Amino acid sequence: MADIPARTELKVTTGPIRGSRKVHVGPLGVAMREIDLEPSCGEPPLRVYDPSGPYTDANARIDIMAGLPEIRRDWIIGRGDVEKVAQREVRPEDNGQLGPDRSGGVQPFPNVRKQVLRARPGANVSQMHYARRGIITPEMEYVAVRENLGREQIREHIRDGQDFGAAIPDFVTPEFVRDEVARGRAIIPSNINHPESEPMAIGRNFLVKINANIGNSAVASDVAAEVDKLVWSIRWGADTVMDLSTGRNIHDTREWILRNSPVPIGTVPIYQALEKVGGVAEDLTWEIFRDTLIEQAEQGVDYFTIHAGVRLPYIPMTAKRVTGIVSRGGSIMAKWCLSHHKESFLYTRFEEICEIMQAYDVAFSLGDGLRPGSIADANDEAQFAELATLGELTQVAWKHDVQVMIEGPGHVPMHKIKANMDKQLEACGEAPFYTLGPLTTDIAPGYDHITSAIGAAMIGWFGTAMLCYVTPKEHLGLPDRDDVKVGVVTYKLAAHAADLAKGHPAAKIRDDALSRARFEFRWRDQFNLSLDPDTAESYHDQTLPAEGAKTAHFCSMCGPKFCSMKITQEVRDFAAKQNQGADSFLAAHAEPVPDAEAGMAQMRDRFREEGSELYLPTDR
Amino acid sequence: MADIPARTELKVTTGPIRGSRKVHVGPLGVAMREIDLEPSCGEPPLRVYDPSGPYTDANARIDIMAGLPEIRRDWIIGRGDVEKVAQREVRPEDNGQLGPDRSGGVQPFPNVRKQVLRARPGANVSQMHYARRGIITPEMEYVAVRENLGREQIREHIRDGQDFGAAIPDFVTPEFVRDEVARGRAIIPSNINHPESEPMAIGRNFLVKINANIGNSAVASDVAAEVDKLVWSIRWGADTVMDLSTGRNIHDTREWILRNSPVPIGTVPIYQALEKVGGVAEDLTWEIFRDTLIEQAEQGVDYFTIHAGVRLPYIPMTAKRVTGIVSRGGSIMAKWCLSHHKESFLYTRFEEICEIMQAYDVAFSLGDGLRPGSIADANDEAQFAELATLGELTQVAWKHDVQVMIEGPGHVPMHKIKANMDKQLEACGEAPFYTLGPLTTDIAPGYDHITSAIGAAMIGWFGTAMLCYVTPKEHLGLPDRDDVKVGVVTYKLAAHAADLAKGHPAAKIRDDALSRARFEFRWRDQFNLSLDPDTAESYHDQTLPAEGAKTAHFCSMCGPKFCSMKITQEVRDFAAKQNQGADSFLAAHAEPVPDAEAGMAQMRDRFREEGSELYLPTDR
Repeated sequence: MADIPARTELKVTTGPIRGSRKVHVGPLGVAMREIDLEPSCGEPPLRVYDPSGPYTDANARIDIMAGLPEIRRDWIIGRGDVEKVAQREVRPEDNGQLGPDRSGGVQPFPNVRKQVLRARPGANVSQMHYARRGIITPEMEYVAVRENLGREQIREHIRDGQDFGAAIPDFVTPEFVRDEVARGRAIIPSNINHPESEPMAIGRNFLVKINANIGNSAVASDVAAEVDKLVWSIRWGADTVMDLSTGRNIHDTREWILRNSPVPIGTVPIYQALEKVGGVAEDLTWEIFRDTLIEQAEQGVDYFTIHAGVRLPYIPMTAKRVTGIVSRGGSIMAKWCLSHHKESFLYTRFEEICEIMQAYDVAFSLGDGLRPGSIADANDEAQFAELATLGELTQVAWKHDVQVMIEGPGHVPMHKIKANMDKQLEACGEAPFYTLGPLTTDIAPGYDHITSAIGAAMIGWFGTAMLCYVTPKEHLGLPDRDDVKVGVVTYKLAAHAADLAKGHPAAKIRDDALSRARFEFRWRDQFNLSLDPDTAESYHDQTLPAEGAKTAHFCSMCGPKFCSMKITQEVRDFAAKQNQGADSFLAAHAEPVPDAEAGMAQMRDRFREEGSELYLPTDR
Repeated sequence: MADIPARTELKVTTGPIRGSRKVHVGPLGVAMREIDLEPSCGEPPLRVYDPSGPYTDANARIDIMAGLPEIRRDWIIGRGDVEKVAQREVRPEDNGQLGPDRSGGVQPFPNVRKQVLRARPGANVSQMHYARRGIITPEMEYVAVRENLGREQIREHIRDGQDFGAAIPDFVTPEFVRDEVARGRAIIPSNINHPESEPMAIGRNFLVKINANIGNSAVASDVAAEVDKLVWSIRWGADTVMDLSTGRNIHDTREWILRNSPVPIGTVPIYQALEKVGGVAEDLTWEIFRDTLIEQAEQGVDYFTIHAGVRLPYIPMTAKRVTGIVSRGGSIMAKWCLSHHKESFLYTRFEEICEIMQAYDVAFSLGDGLRPGSIADANDEAQFAELATLGELTQVAWKHDVQVMIEGPGHVPMHKIKANMDKQLEACGEAPFYTLGPLTTDIAPGYDHITSAIGAAMIGWFGTAMLCYVTPKEHLGLPDRDDVKVGVVTYKLAAHAADLAKGHPAAKIRDDALSRARFEFRWRDQFNLSLDPDTAESYHDQTLPAEGAKTAHFCSMCGPKFCSMKITQEVRDFAAKQNQGADSFLAAHAEPVPDAEAGMAQMRDRFREEGSELYLPTDR
């Protein structure tokens, strides 16, 4: 380890997103973002959901070396069901250091806890356990405030959407949150050793969430880049982040990520377990895996992807596929099962895994190790055989009051997407669905954030609770910072399109505010209300860079001489002045009749007198 | 005009798209593209639909100053129903030169025809007219070959898709094309004065097409850039191109575009008419509009967007909208109607317009001048009132054997998209639908190619025949070359996703070929089979630039030590060697039972003997 640099330089992007401020709402100080609008419009600031944590708070002091404030610590301790235990000692193999380390190394997080929390013997600290005992936790209260965003102000609005049997309330109460968690329809990933996280819910009756993947790989990336990507991805809207590191230094990288993350962190523990056995899948054992679960649970990982549905009998079903098994976790377990010709230990030891999960409140993300990796393989026997097993395991987890969500595909043509949702709801008792896309065609590598956003928006509408992002580099390489942002924004818009279509009561508020700004040529408001104000403004400025163009009542598409938006304003002004609705026009002029000519001439003259010339002079 | 540069420099991108060759199929020499695959895979070259024209033909000599070969000229003349007439003389106002010209000017196309074609008195030269008389034109034959692409080789495959009542044939015959055109369910835009165009069909029972918009505006752009964008957009897959120029030099710009376009060109004639009256909508007259139609028809424009459905009584219905009238054509006509308080001359003179259309075979693209410009305004009274009128006008056009398609929105949340398609099919007698997106949310300016690709893929699946692209600059600025490419590729993937979901017989061939290449680590094939090989390869090279990495049997996501694709190959090899299907596994091991242990151990040993170690050494 002699070649570890003296100090990894860690830089992250901080400061408010342009045009907005961090606000903290209610007694729990629920974090939200308020976008200020131009005073001329007379509209109040618009509040939006905000997973970006303290990094976008102008008043917060960020110290990556120290980690974030532990906002949940008192709540956790206050429940009186945890004990402090010495943290499992870090071993060389936790960082993949089986032989000489040529990775460049990662400095350990300087503020590692000596003691960690664990449920007292016999206790269960999962949010589901509390929920089922009728307890409303502060986490549930936080979620209720967070999800309600804007619903007060639009209570009078008519609900508009198609929700495919979801039960989205007009108003989210803490009791509603509790009930959803108790029923298993929502989860609040909240490891007791990750008190830095701001509570959030994943469930069909809440806003659709998105996940961003980050992580080292064997060929690239480093801890500074990963912490930067974490902060960068939540800045643009990632609701949870998965650390999919697979190379060296997995343990230390994860510590940096967890201590600096205000969002739940997920992992795929089998990746680290595989590193511990030198990458030889058949050498994996239950003991190594179990130890890895505890190691990660003690660090604070909020949900584990566990591919316990990859059962021995399902593996040969993949032999005829075009792309076989494309899930890394799925193929690791397939290799193990085939090699030993034994049922997967993830399946046979599932109850023991549940006991670990409940001691830290780690949620299951039951992995779809047999998901289709191509259009050709969508909705096949292997995929649905595994889904049935995931449903069976959901019931086992729920027996232990362990929170569960279910992972879904993958690559699915549009006409086969709905069946995925329907089968998941049925097989898994409405446990939240968490899908990767799905990609709706295989022919556009380089654009798979888009091929998959189509599928993601649709399956989100149908009921998927969280959408795992896909970046433009999918299938081709490792995403850089720009790719992460494009992936996150693309998935935010897909999730929002789903919320709109489901009829979430307040989803439309932001669309309407932005459209009013657009119509009224409030360019800055239009930028600031968008998911990515920086890109919106830079695109505008590429055509009309002058500062004056941002307050101009025209745009580059039509120019100053003619503008359809301006003409509409004339129509509106005219209709208002005439105090005439559509009905009077319709009655008088449904068909052009000769003897209406005189009346028309009169109306025409009045319009002209009232100033039909609203164009700016051409010479300006 | 003294400040016109001596010579506009016109450069376009030529040469084959990487990894492919232009081929010409059958007696008509139907243009297609063949992608060669690595010899190791044993697969034949893959043919793909190709609207890029001679520009991607290594054997073609391109001369922008001369224009493209007139491949349809003999067919048109051979029908014996046209006459040659002197082309209407170009007037200064055709290029918007009412006052001193400060535009920089555009040099006239050097090869302007002195004589143009027109139907003989009493004749009708539309493809619909021939179709209805039972005549199969070479244009229809060309379309049949073009659409059939790959269908022969997969005749044995089971159709897989949901087509919502479309009538997609297993095999496209010229007679099928004729019948679709005769019924009005498809159009072949083919102005007799645009003999350079390669025939293509727009209809629900053919492959979903896409359109790219280009054009000058009052504030930016020039003819060299527009010709370049034309060639660039068809290179990446635009099936038709609309020239939406609005500034000066509209006539000359269009001449350059038409003479160099192998795809149908559409325009919105009211834009040019408005320039002729100095931008003052109320000064428009039927005579000026009519003259503009003839001017453009003589040049060879293949379809006209005409907003004849913006009727006087519908205008006040837009007053309460969040974004009023956002269509430029729609608002021009709204302003005219209100100003004169008269019914639109586009509506009252519709039959006269039909007579012009049939004399040149210009197709109608009946414009949706009242389309919603925001989520809030989707599917409202104004929109559907206009749609009903477009349906009425479709019948009038069909009475004249004039080809018609119908333009659609716009901004529509997902749950309201299907209703648009259903109502259009019903109101317009299955005339092809041609939609702009629709955008499924308003909150992502800068990403509206994606917000709209979601809606476009869905409405394409539901039955829309052509999707008008949206670029990342939508609502913000004018698209540059990169934006045009991103818009085109995004819409190609959306159209293809729709084809897959509809169950077009051969659509899946390309997905499967690409997925096989991906699974077998044929990196070059994966790039070349994609919609944008250049971007795919450059993304790959950002992580693994070495030349060797393109033939490596691993990728940057997992690295050389572990690879899920490789494990699947093991599974497959193992299953094949055992000659065991899924059934035997299932029967033996559906539940792990103690006394199966011995058999498992035996299988395990066999697997290990047969070489379970397929990993590359870690040190490589």
